[in-house]
Order: sequence, then structure tokens, then C-alpha cells
Amino acid sequence: MKLYSYFRSSAAYRVRIALNLKGISYDTVPIHLAKDGGQNRKPEFRAVNPQMRVPVLAISSGDVLVQSLAIIEYLDEVYPEPPLLPADAVARAKVRAVSQIIACDIHPLANTSPLRYLKNTLGHDQPAIDAWYHHWVLEGFEAVEAMIRPGPYLCGAQVTLADLCLVPQVFNARRLKVPLERFPKIVAADAACLKLAAFDKARPENQPDAE
Amino acid sequence: MKLYSYFRSSAAYRVRIALNLKGISYDTVPIHLAKDGGQNRKPEFRAVNPQMRVPVLAISSGDVLVQSLAIIEYLDEVYPEPPLLPADAVARAKVRAVSQIIACDIHPLANTSPLRYLKNTLGHDQPAIDAWYHHWVLEGFEAVEAMIRPGPYLCGAQVTLADLCLVPQVFNARRLKVPLERFPKIVAADAACLKLAAFDKARPENQPDAE
Repeated sequence: MKLYSYFRSSAAYRVRIALNLKGISYDTVPIHLAKDGGQNRKPEFRAVNPQMRVPVLAISSGDVLVQSLAIIEYLDEVYPEPPLLPADAVARAKVRAVSQIIACDIHPLANTSPLRYLKNTLGHDQPAIDAWYHHWVLEGFEAVEAMIRPGPYLCGAQVTLADLCLVPQVFNARRLKVPLERFPKIVAADAACLKLAAFDKARPENQPDAE
Repeated sequence: MKLYSYFRSSAAYRVRIALNLKGISYDTVPIHLAKDGGQNRKPEFRAVNPQMRVPVLAISSGDVLVQSLAIIEYLDEVYPEPPLLPADAVARAKVRAVSQIIACDIHPLANTSPLRYLKNTLGHDQPAIDAWYHHWVLEGFEAVEAMIRPGPYLCGAQVTLADLCLVPQVFNARRLKVPLERFPKIVAADAACLKLAAFDKARPENQPDAE
């Protein structure tokens, strides 16, 4: 398998954790989202993914999969061990809900595209952009913190899809100096995950394209 | 079942379509997102959903499910007919990817929360807010239009999860006057869906709380 990735992309980070947990070996194709005006915007990459985003997983059949949660659900269906979703339908819905609060309600607003729009198109300064970023992370983390039970992981005793969404978002939040004291359960789940080799190996700083 | 809904919410609209397609009867609990400073922000509703968003599906076990895609996947697992995802893992990943471009990369940026932030916190006028809205819809629809094949539905001959995400987003885009001429495949899939009773019945204007 070939993963088109950028070391700092939260969405690529989620997929790297999934591949590591499943024990799937893969080659990284680094796509730098800032260098050369964004390598993701070059025609070569647009031919791979019309949305011009990472991650993209190219599998042995020649199929090319996009969107991190779709890729992870695919991996979980085809490589079921260890499972990233519980067996019970209600429990699965709860794990997916926590995952989607992060992947739909925090990350898209805190991602580089809207931050660039705020800066370049709307002319905001860094403090206003940081306040926007903090706002969405804090609002989303408040909901997650209120929804989860004691861990060690975000949804209980097993690592789930929700942890794969959490750890990259916490990494990102720390990089942008969001105070996390109000979220002891989130901080504890993040720490528990990062003790696992699959998470550690997926960290941005451990990628071949890390700067 | 009880669906906490707001007639104009795209995410609630998705779940209404799923319930109708599956032939599941439900009661609507209207939660007005603007009236009284937002009925979703009242303590009674916060006790139901700490994230204070609709939709919420309360099922007969007493469990309360949140996040539209998590709810729809739950319904698809427990009420498998008609299926909203194909059987093949790669095909499922492709349907989920198109769904997520809409649900993660368009909708969260075009939703009322960021639009209100742009207006109230950042002080932007309506033309700037409309330009922001159009930007994310156009960018996302460009990717979707490039990824899909002839229909009649978004991912082929069967209605899938992707259509449940598409139709509410197109409704919303039209309401905010986004030009859709560049997206003939999207427009055709939307029209094909709206011929089905399950989609028609789920339209905002056909809800008990419609204004």
C-alpha cells in the first residue's frame, strides 16, 4: 500500500495510526501542503485525488481511497484485527459519534484551509485566527469530555476509531497552545494512546517528511 | 423512536431521509435553533446532548444517539433494508468518501455556527459571509462532481449514504444562491432523489416545525 501523507496533517495521522495498529506495512509518498505553493495542488496529485487533499491510500487493486474516516472504516472491514469499532450497534454509534465531533465539528474549522481564508481573504491577524482556532477546539472538546466515560482510552478499555481522531487533534491543539486543563479525561486518553507503539510511530515527528 | 430535529438543519434532514427510506416511524421533537436564543442551548436539551446540536435520535432502549452519520450507520446496521452502503468494501469506502466530503469538508464550514462567528465575533457583512459560504460549497462540489459516475444517484444505480448527504447540501446551497450550473451530475442526482417519497417527505418544508 502507498499512503500519500503530510507529516503534520491530522487526517493523515489518523490513517497512519490505523495502518500501524493493523500491522499493515506501507510506503509513504510525502505531499508537502505548503512547499511550492502546495504540492497537493499540482496536476499530478490532482489526478490522484480531485479534492487535492491528503491522506490518500492507494491499495494493491489499483483503487485509490480518500477521506480519512472512509479509509479507516475500509481498513477495519478488510483487516478486522484489532477491531477499531465495538461489535454492538449502539456502542459503535457512540464511538462514531465521538469520532465525528472531532472529524466533522472541530477539525474542518481548525484546518489550514479556513485559517488561510481568514488570513488571506478576510485579512485577519494572528490573534484573531488563533481565537477562531481555540473557539472550535474548546467547544468540541467540551462536548467530547462530557460524553466519555473513564478510559483508559476515549471510549473505554479498547482503542477505537475515536482515539485515532483524538490524538492528532490534541497534538494540533497543543501546537496552537489551546489550554487543555479543563479536559482531564481527554488528556488522560491521549497519554494512554501515546504509550502504544502504533500511535508513537505515527507521530508527525516520526515521519520521513518531518521537518 | 424520537428525533430531535430542526426543519432547516441539513444534518437532521439526512437522518429524516434515512428513517423514511427504512420505513421507520418516529416522532419529531422540534428544537428551534434560533428562537429563544436557541432552544438547543437550554439546560433541558443540553442534558439530552452535551454538544447542543441536532439531530438526536432517542431509541427504544433509552439510548440517545448523536451525530448524523453515526446515527445513519446505526440505522443501516440494525435495519439493513434497503442498504445505504454497497456490500463491497472498496465501494463502501467510495460512498463514505463522497459522503464525508459533504459532511466534513463542506457542511461544517457552511453551517450556522461559523457563519454566526463571522458575523458576530469577526464583524463581517453579509456579502463577505455569503462569499465564505459559496467558497466551501463550490470547492467541495467540484471534488464530488469530479469523483462521481453517471447516476441516476450520486454513486450509481442505488440510493446511498452519499445521496442523504447531498440533497440537504444542495437545498442549502440553493437557499444561499450558490450557482450550480457547473455541477450537472450533482444537480441530476439531487433531482433523481427528490422524486422518491422518502426524500420528499424529509424536505424542510414538509416538517411539522416548518416556517
